[in-house]
Amino acid sequence: MATQRILDFLADRRPDGPCLVLDLDVVRQNYLSFARAMPATRIFYAVKANPAPEILALLAELGSSFDTASLPEIEMALAAGATPERISFGNTIKKERDIARAHHLGVSLFAVDSTQEVEKIARAAPGAKVFCRILTDGQGAEWPLSRKFGCVPEMALEVLELAHRLGLHAYGVSFHVGSQQTQLAAWERALEQTARIFRTLAERGITLSMVNLGGGFPARYLKDVPSVARYSNAIQRGLAKHFGNAIPETIIEPGRGMVGSAGVIKAEVVLVAKKQAEDDKRWVFLDIGKFGGLAETMEEAIRYPITTTRDKDEKGPCVIAGPTCDSADVLYEKTPYDLPITLTVGDEVLIEAAGAYTTTYASVAFNGFAPLKAFVI
Amino acid sequence: MATQRILDFLADRRPDGPCLVLDLDVVRQNYLSFARAMPATRIFYAVKANPAPEILALLAELGSSFDTASLPEIEMALAAGATPERISFGNTIKKERDIARAHHLGVSLFAVDSTQEVEKIARAAPGAKVFCRILTDGQGAEWPLSRKFGCVPEMALEVLELAHRLGLHAYGVSFHVGSQQTQLAAWERALEQTARIFRTLAERGITLSMVNLGGGFPARYLKDVPSVARYSNAIQRGLAKHFGNAIPETIIEPGRGMVGSAGVIKAEVVLVAKKQAEDDKRWVFLDIGKFGGLAETMEEAIRYPITTTRDKDEKGPCVIAGPTCDSADVLYEKTPYDLPITLTVGDEVLIEAAGAYTTTYASVAFNGFAPLKAFVI
Repeated sequence: MATQRILDFLADRRPDGPCLVLDLDVVRQNYLSFARAMPATRIFYAVKANPAPEILALLAELGSSFDTASLPEIEMALAAGATPERISFGNTIKKERDIARAHHLGVSLFAVDSTQEVEKIARAAPGAKVFCRILTDGQGAEWPLSRKFGCVPEMALEVLELAHRLGLHAYGVSFHVGSQQTQLAAWERALEQTARIFRTLAERGITLSMVNLGGGFPARYLKDVPSVARYSNAIQRGLAKHFGNAIPETIIEPGRGMVGSAGVIKAEVVLVAKKQAEDDKRWVFLDIGKFGGLAETMEEAIRYPITTTRDKDEKGPCVIAGPTCDSADVLYEKTPYDLPITLTVGDEVLIEAAGAYTTTYASVAFNGFAPLKAFVI
Repeated sequence: MATQRILDFLADRRPDGPCLVLDLDVVRQNYLSFARAMPATRIFYAVKANPAPEILALLAELGSSFDTASLPEIEMALAAGATPERISFGNTIKKERDIARAHHLGVSLFAVDSTQEVEKIARAAPGAKVFCRILTDGQGAEWPLSRKFGCVPEMALEVLELAHRLGLHAYGVSFHVGSQQTQLAAWERALEQTARIFRTLAERGITLSMVNLGGGFPARYLKDVPSVARYSNAIQRGLAKHFGNAIPETIIEPGRGMVGSAGVIKAEVVLVAKKQAEDDKRWVFLDIGKFGGLAETMEEAIRYPITTTRDKDEKGPCVIAGPTCDSADVLYEKTPYDLPITLTVGDEVLIEAAGAYTTTYASVAFNGFAPLKAFVI
């Protein structure tokens, strides 16, 4: 999955230390795939997946909107050329002073999932549009969502009614089927619940207009995943079935699906060792680990494709670990990887599909190691 | 556990945002406790626990040595006033060019646990002292060690013999009983294995001289822990029992035990919400979470004491979560905390015993949030 541009960059520049190289051409293709597959849907790129200024500027130019998690992300989106009406403050957990500042910057679309958050927004951003996030079961997602975000549909009614009563624009409903979601039926289940909220509130005189379909669009790691077009079809069918001829405005928030496949991490083998002579598995230690950008290997959730220059040689099972003095810094142990038996100290490895949730997850300086460098080309 | 100096600092300065405030007086007391309890043992502070320059300078002045995980940590220790012979390059996973650079800076003590690492050191730091880390079971530790570091004792013989053959100084054996270790018997078991390695190598003409007892000395979080003196007694008994009248040189590598109790994180309640009307637990969202410095809440391993200004009020169970749009950013859910029922948005909370493994674990900018600020006073 490393593009020729990425391979050429690595060959020409030979950057030292672990680094992410991200190909903007792939981001562009991914954006256009979403836009083509879902022409009636506004795309809000989830900035948290990778906030590199070059990515934000490209997407702003292509017409994308932006889903932001914090005031700094709002400022980055604005700096990249997005206008405030193309920015959603999508975190349901916001300080009131950050809401006020976002409102001052012109942002007028906010996520909520509790009455307390509605009260803050009514005070700090009067008249703003709010959408309420509902809980979904996350079934089928590889990086499942906890109950952290959203509330049950009955409470969403209360939250949106309060927003209406406090002079806010009760605008819609959002859900998130879970990151790296591969079961198409997940969207259909969530749309059914959402349509019920629309109907109930309409009976009470409140007209919602927007469904935020969230993210969850997968990047291809080791397993094949359904195409964007198949997602789009499943969603269109769900909308038609549950909303009939009153199809609402829709938005999506791809993050991983937009940038995951665009990036490759170059790393180096620091050590290959056994713990005892009779071990059948080697330990392969890389110069990047859980605290250097690969946090999503937590519980071995995301399994990145890993390639080496010796992939034609015979392979054998390895535990793969990072370079820090932290025993939790092991990437894959329960399900070992097969890597070339000839792999040795100093060899370069490529960790593919690493464009999302890597640079920003890196720790400031754990064990003294610098954060992951990134080259956006 | 917040000292009066920390409380005064917070009251006077009222710093914005989440921040760590660390009291150097406590670090000094902790150092002196170790030094008094184990007068014959050299103390190597594990820099990774908290590399704040003020901490390193204080410890250098007090006579501490330093256990480092990387070249940048070596440079920080030198900058703080440590001489090279007081620095151990304690990571068993090192790039050969980093070994060469450390050697060039005058560092001459290196950790190993594999023959490949010995070969690198023989090439890049000829004549250096090496100690071999052995695997221990980690039983009784709250943040248990995986098999990432160390090798079985039989392999340690091979590793140290190779070091001797390649002209290095086969210097000793290290082990680590697991971080936050509260079972005193863990040291005794490891010392028995170590003594056997000393004897076997002596029979082969190689005289080891040092036992690195590692870290694992606990900080007090919610539960009481044995005192440093009790650890010291257990270790002395173990040494006497297994080494008889040939007690080796010993070193310890406290990190958490040196700085954990010295720091307090000030945080703010951003939201208190329920997911459905009938929930018996509230969700309390703070402005700091797993990616802002509290990574050690992973699997709810470390349970920090949390105090609020309303602690006299009635308490009830809470899930505690961080401020990011990441569903994994939940601190305590399986075993909820009891916090005051009156706790509300804007309230300040103190997360105590947070001086170790917080500032450096913080992510660069996940969700746009700045890394944890620190004030060392």
